[in-house]
Amino acid sequence: MTFQNKISNYKNIVDKELKSIYNKGPLNLTEPINHILSGGKRLRPLLCLLTASAFKGSKKDALIASVAIELLHNFTLIHDDIMDNDDIRHGLSTIHNKWNNSIAILAGDATLAIALIHLNRLTENKNLIIEHFNYALIQVCEGQALDLAFQYNMDISEEDYISMIDKKTGYIIGLCSMLGSIISKNDNSINIKLKKYGILIGRAFQIQDDLLEITSNQNKMGKSLKSDFLLNKKTYLTIKANSINSNIVNKCIKTAKNDFNLGFSKYKNFLVENGIVDESIQKINGILASARSILDGLDMNNKYLYEYIKLILNRDA
Amino acid sequence: MTFQNKISNYKNIVDKELKSIYNKGPLNLTEPINHILSGGKRLRPLLCLLTASAFKGSKKDALIASVAIELLHNFTLIHDDIMDNDDIRHGLSTIHNKWNNSIAILAGDATLAIALIHLNRLTENKNLIIEHFNYALIQVCEGQALDLAFQYNMDISEEDYISMIDKKTGYIIGLCSMLGSIISKNDNSINIKLKKYGILIGRAFQIQDDLLEITSNQNKMGKSLKSDFLLNKKTYLTIKANSINSNIVNKCIKTAKNDFNLGFSKYKNFLVENGIVDESIQKINGILASARSILDGLDMNNKYLYEYIKLILNRDA
Repeated sequence: MTFQNKISNYKNIVDKELKSIYNKGPLNLTEPINHILSGGKRLRPLLCLLTASAFKGSKKDALIASVAIELLHNFTLIHDDIMDNDDIRHGLSTIHNKWNNSIAILAGDATLAIALIHLNRLTENKNLIIEHFNYALIQVCEGQALDLAFQYNMDISEEDYISMIDKKTGYIIGLCSMLGSIISKNDNSINIKLKKYGILIGRAFQIQDDLLEITSNQNKMGKSLKSDFLLNKKTYLTIKANSINSNIVNKCIKTAKNDFNLGFSKYKNFLVENGIVDESIQKINGILASARSILDGLDMNNKYLYEYIKLILNRDA
Repeated sequence: MTFQNKISNYKNIVDKELKSIYNKGPLNLTEPINHILSGGKRLRPLLCLLTASAFKGSKKDALIASVAIELLHNFTLIHDDIMDNDDIRHGLSTIHNKWNNSIAILAGDATLAIALIHLNRLTENKNLIIEHFNYALIQVCEGQALDLAFQYNMDISEEDYISMIDKKTGYIIGLCSMLGSIISKNDNSINIKLKKYGILIGRAFQIQDDLLEITSNQNKMGKSLKSDFLLNKKTYLTIKANSINSNIVNKCIKTAKNDFNLGFSKYKNFLVENGIVDESIQKINGILASARSILDGLDMNNKYLYEYIKLILNRDA
C-alpha cells in the first residue's frame, strides 16, 4: 500500500471513531464537541498509528490511543482559541465564537474527560500509557502558560523558546510516537527514542508554523497572525529579530497598530535582510535531520516514519 | 479520638499535601493554583478518609485519592467561577478576578492534570479508581452544562433538577465515599452502597445550598446569589415556585432587575407563604434519612459516616 493510501485509510478510521465518540450527553455539549471534531488533519493520530504499524504493534490499541490523543489535542485547541480570541479553526468557527466562552470552557473540559474515559478501553500497558498521557497533559498546560508569560517579556532566549514549544507542541507529538512504540511492546530505550523523534517533529512543526506566518499567503493565516503579532507573541523569528535589534521590532509592532500591512511588511523586510528567514529554514531542516537520524538506528517494518517527516514538511498552512 | 479531632487532623494532613503538590511549574500557574488551593473546608477529602477509616482501608491510598478529588473539585470551581462570573470563593478572590480568564482556564486545566498525575501514586486498584474518577469528571461537566441549559428553560421538573445536581454535585461526593470503600477492598455491592450514600449527601448538600440562599444572612451569600437569581438559575426552590405560579416568579425577577431587595423579598415571601421553605427542609431531611439507612445495613468500624451527615447538615453557608 502506498503511504498516501495508508494515511488516507487511517484518517477515515479515526474520523469514523470520532464521529461516534460522544453523542449521548446534553445538547449544549454534544453539538459543540462534534462540531469541532469534524475538522482537522489528524496528524497526531496518524503518527501513533504509523509508529505501531512500523513495529507491528496492536492496531486496536493504537487506534484507541490515537483517538484519545486527538481528543487531547482538541481540548487544547478549544481552550487556546478562547485565550487567543481566535474565530476560525480548521476552517470552522471556533466554539467560543459560535456558542460562547462558558460553553467552550466546558466543551474543552468534557473533550478531555472523553479522552481519559476512552483510554480505559486499552488492553495492555494501560497504566504506563495513562501515565505518559497525563504527563503530556501537564506539559501542554505549562507550555501554554509560558507562551502567555513570554508576551510580557522581551528577553526570551532561543533556548527558552525551544523549551516552551517543546512543552506546548512537542510533547503531544512525542506522545503519539511513544505510545505507538509502547503499544508495540518495544524496549523502553526504543520508546524513549521514538518520543524524542516526535518531540523533534513537533519542534520543527512549530518553527515551520512561525515561518509560514511570514512566507505564506496572509489570507490563509488571517486574524490569528494579526493578533499574534500585535500581542507580541513570541515566534522563532521574533526571538531572532529581537536578538539582532529589538528596537526595530518594537517600532514595527507600533506601526502595525495603526497600519498593520505597513508595520508587518517592514518587519518581514527586516527578517529577510538579516537572513532570519533562511536561518529558520536551516533550523527546521536541522531538526528534521536529527529526527531522521533517530530512525536510522531502529529496526522497523516499513518506511512510514520517514514519510511522515516529509508529510509534515510539505504542508502549506 | 473525637470526631472533631479526627476531621481536624485529616484536614491538616490534606492541607499539607496540597501545599506541596505543585510548586515547580511556571509562576503564572503555580501562583494562581496555590492561591485557590489555600482555601476550602476539604469536605470531600474528609469523606474519602472517613470512609477508608470506617472500613480499615489503607490510609496512604485514601490520602492520595482524597487529594486528587480535592484537586478535581477545585478544577470545577475555577472554571465554574469564570462561567458564573463570581469574584469570591472560600473568602478569596477567584483566579479570573485576581488574574484573568486565560490564566483561570489554564490553571483549572493544570489542576485537573495534577490530580490525574497524583492518582498514579496509588498502590492498589489503580485502574478501577481512575475509571471511577474519570466517570465523575464527565458527570460534573454534563451537570454544569445542564445547569447552563436550564437557565433558558422554565419547564424544568423536580426530576430533571435532581438529575442535574446529582451530576454537578452528587457524583464527586459519591466518588469520595466509593473510593474510600474501594481502597478498603470491600465487595462491589458495598462500594455501590457507599457511592449511593455519597450521591445522596451531595443532593442534600445542594438543596441545602439552595435553601441557604433564602434563609441565611444575605451578605454571606453575596454577589453570587444576586446574579444567580437574576440569571434565572434553577434551584430546588425556584422549581417548586415555578410549578405553583411561574408568572409570580417572573415578576419577582423583573422587579429585582430594577430593585434587587424588593424583588427578592417578594420572592422569599412567596416561598414562605406557599410552604416551599418547609418543603425543602423536609426534602433535605428525607434524603439524609435515606443516606443514614444505607449506613444502617453496613458493618463498620466506627460511627464517622453518621457524624459526617451531621457535619453537612450543620454548616451555615
